[in-house]
Amino acid sequence: MTNDLRIAVAGVGTVGSGLIRLLEENADVIEGRAGRPLVVRAVSARNRGRDRGVDIDRFDWEDNPAALARRDDIDVVVELMGGSDGPARHLVETALQNGKPVVTANKALIAEHGAALARLADEKGLPFAYEAAVAGGIPIIKAVREGLSANRISRVYGILNGTCNYILTEMRNSGRDFDDVLKDAQELGYAEADPSFDVGGVDAAHKLAILASVCFGSEIDFAAVGIEGIQRISSVDIAYADEFGYRIKLLGVAEWIDGQVAQRVQPCLVRADTPIAKVEGVDNAIVTEANHVGRTMFEGPGAGAGPTASAVAADLVDIARRRNTPMFGLPSRRLTAASAYPPEKRRGHYYIRLNVLDRPGVIADVSAVLRDTEISIEQMLQRADHDDGGTAPVVVITHETTEARIMAALQRIEALDSIVETPHLLRIENF
Amino acid sequence: MTNDLRIAVAGVGTVGSGLIRLLEENADVIEGRAGRPLVVRAVSARNRGRDRGVDIDRFDWEDNPAALARRDDIDVVVELMGGSDGPARHLVETALQNGKPVVTANKALIAEHGAALARLADEKGLPFAYEAAVAGGIPIIKAVREGLSANRISRVYGILNGTCNYILTEMRNSGRDFDDVLKDAQELGYAEADPSFDVGGVDAAHKLAILASVCFGSEIDFAAVGIEGIQRISSVDIAYADEFGYRIKLLGVAEWIDGQVAQRVQPCLVRADTPIAKVEGVDNAIVTEANHVGRTMFEGPGAGAGPTASAVAADLVDIARRRNTPMFGLPSRRLTAASAYPPEKRRGHYYIRLNVLDRPGVIADVSAVLRDTEISIEQMLQRADHDDGGTAPVVVITHETTEARIMAALQRIEALDSIVETPHLLRIENF
Repeated sequence: MTNDLRIAVAGVGTVGSGLIRLLEENADVIEGRAGRPLVVRAVSARNRGRDRGVDIDRFDWEDNPAALARRDDIDVVVELMGGSDGPARHLVETALQNGKPVVTANKALIAEHGAALARLADEKGLPFAYEAAVAGGIPIIKAVREGLSANRISRVYGILNGTCNYILTEMRNSGRDFDDVLKDAQELGYAEADPSFDVGGVDAAHKLAILASVCFGSEIDFAAVGIEGIQRISSVDIAYADEFGYRIKLLGVAEWIDGQVAQRVQPCLVRADTPIAKVEGVDNAIVTEANHVGRTMFEGPGAGAGPTASAVAADLVDIARRRNTPMFGLPSRRLTAASAYPPEKRRGHYYIRLNVLDRPGVIADVSAVLRDTEISIEQMLQRADHDDGGTAPVVVITHETTEARIMAALQRIEALDSIVETPHLLRIENF
Repeated sequence: MTNDLRIAVAGVGTVGSGLIRLLEENADVIEGRAGRPLVVRAVSARNRGRDRGVDIDRFDWEDNPAALARRDDIDVVVELMGGSDGPARHLVETALQNGKPVVTANKALIAEHGAALARLADEKGLPFAYEAAVAGGIPIIKAVREGLSANRISRVYGILNGTCNYILTEMRNSGRDFDDVLKDAQELGYAEADPSFDVGGVDAAHKLAILASVCFGSEIDFAAVGIEGIQRISSVDIAYADEFGYRIKLLGVAEWIDGQVAQRVQPCLVRADTPIAKVEGVDNAIVTEANHVGRTMFEGPGAGAGPTASAVAADLVDIARRRNTPMFGLPSRRLTAASAYPPEKRRGHYYIRLNVLDRPGVIADVSAVLRDTEISIEQMLQRADHDDGGTAPVVVITHETTEARIMAALQRIEALDSIVETPHLLRIENF
């Protein structure tokens, strides 16, 4: 009987090819750390003949990925096909049913079916590993589940999508607008041809739901994540934020509040002197706040073949060494079914940008609405210079208030006839 | 037979008390993640009666710490006494000899005796855990040994001493000088009454030697670390560095170069726009560069009761779950006895600050020495304004050269009769 950890890989695209290359290039190091060789034995992919830069003819081939999970000569199945349902889900379930541990980079699958998968993995007594699903090469799942295991984590937040962070960084550096920078990002390969999953915040939300579950020991609840993308951020918002001492970042934020879980992915303002504000370009970064360790931050490449393969291979090393951890840190039966914290209860400061007709009384009208909804103004900025259409920008930073009040105020402000477009609202996160 | 993980704690000072408090406050979370309760059963300390804010009378008491390691009702020994030899070393060896895993926060012990301890632990098949020894609450040992296990790491560097980072940050923010800021740091509790271990770089060097071994799979070699503290950094160096676009940080840097290991702890200039330059105050941060994942950074509190206890407790959870990892990532027999990279071979840019007599020909003399030692000047700055003593500062930033050439040049420059004090040399690290 062999001592090798015999691996099947389903899906040999960018990440799959990167994994095969990594396992070869670093075979000696990996064998040392894993205590035995890690060997790819069989693969499955959509297109057998495609040029991938790695030779897959050496491995056994299966047309049907689920067949990998039924082979006797396979110890662990790596799922890199993607998609929250269909073949990917079928494969990982088949693997667990057949007594094989699973490693995956599939955040959608876990965000949507994590609870059921954790129960199945526990029932079978098998590891289900997914380090690569959150923040690419940053070992954040390990850091939270194991490194910070003795802490009660109260909040986790981070830059979970490199595409958005690149776009926001570039918008600030160049003063250009969203569409323009997005086009560049696509040409540079930092954004997909269809960027909606990234810029719309769904990708970050998948990762946030996973992090929340691991941090709080709560059942994963992707449907409860409030999601807002960066498509409406304009270069003037970035410039105003700068003026007030803030940066705009697309953040995923999850908090444990009195037994409820708040989860939101939103572009927001963070003070320029905080560590998270200083994370630039395509990097991801995650901050955890916990009751004994305090605040820790993990930063690194959140995507790409090398970083993602690094995380997948680390999971394989754990399996080779039999370092087992329940999928979400706790046995699935101990995960709490915490309810969602109502978003309208959120307390915080807000940034409101209005485009108003440049005529007397407008500021008085806006101020009156804020007064009537009991929102106090911390700072207000009105530019003398208006554009050709006879409108002028007004920016308000509020004192702390609730989201419910802000929403009520915005509805009334939008109804004023001096307001020429839907108000722009951004949350301020005071970490 | 009990399912509890029964713990003995030797040394109940700040960290020991913090650990006892943490294990109590977070008992439910920890039991969930560990799969069983973690229970302190016995303790030993220098002074039994001292007020610690936690009641230790509930635990069995041993006058002799080594007696903890011989008790049948103890599963794991936590060493928090400190000191590289004497009772701490005796205790951990006795524990291993008696079949008990060890958890420690003792960086000096590991830096000086790590190789022998790893062999003993391997021989006995026992975990020897020390997450708390490096960068306090940041789970960097786990991140490197497990999270990045599939990578070949080529370089690791970081801010490994919070006291020094606090002092350098404050010096920059306030323009005040070293002695002045050190006094403040002592009053705030950020620096010890005897600060020499911290400001002299030895504390950071202990941590660096451990990181180097874990990153490169090389036998730990503390004696090979080049160590320079921050005592000679003046506020003018910080101001000049700023002018050239740099920050001054005390960094530990370890590199794997052609099968040799370079290790140095030195104040150095890093570009102001790099992530490591932006780490301020008492935080620690570690950057790893590896062949597939690329660059990752881990930042957080490097000292204090809570963060250190968090790391110790995480090691205990690993032991409770039987997640085992060789002490330095590889079995001790596989660690390479890499030789030390000769420091004089280092290639890089350098910062030289001279105090010169304000008279004709001085710059010509200095330039001639640099030319004769084949060092080219990237930037030079001479201030018109000199002090009352008739001397003026001259700052040179060199192009890339070797440390050997720089040393030769400095020797000749210092011998010039227009040079009124020993030249100030700082390395520039271009990460």
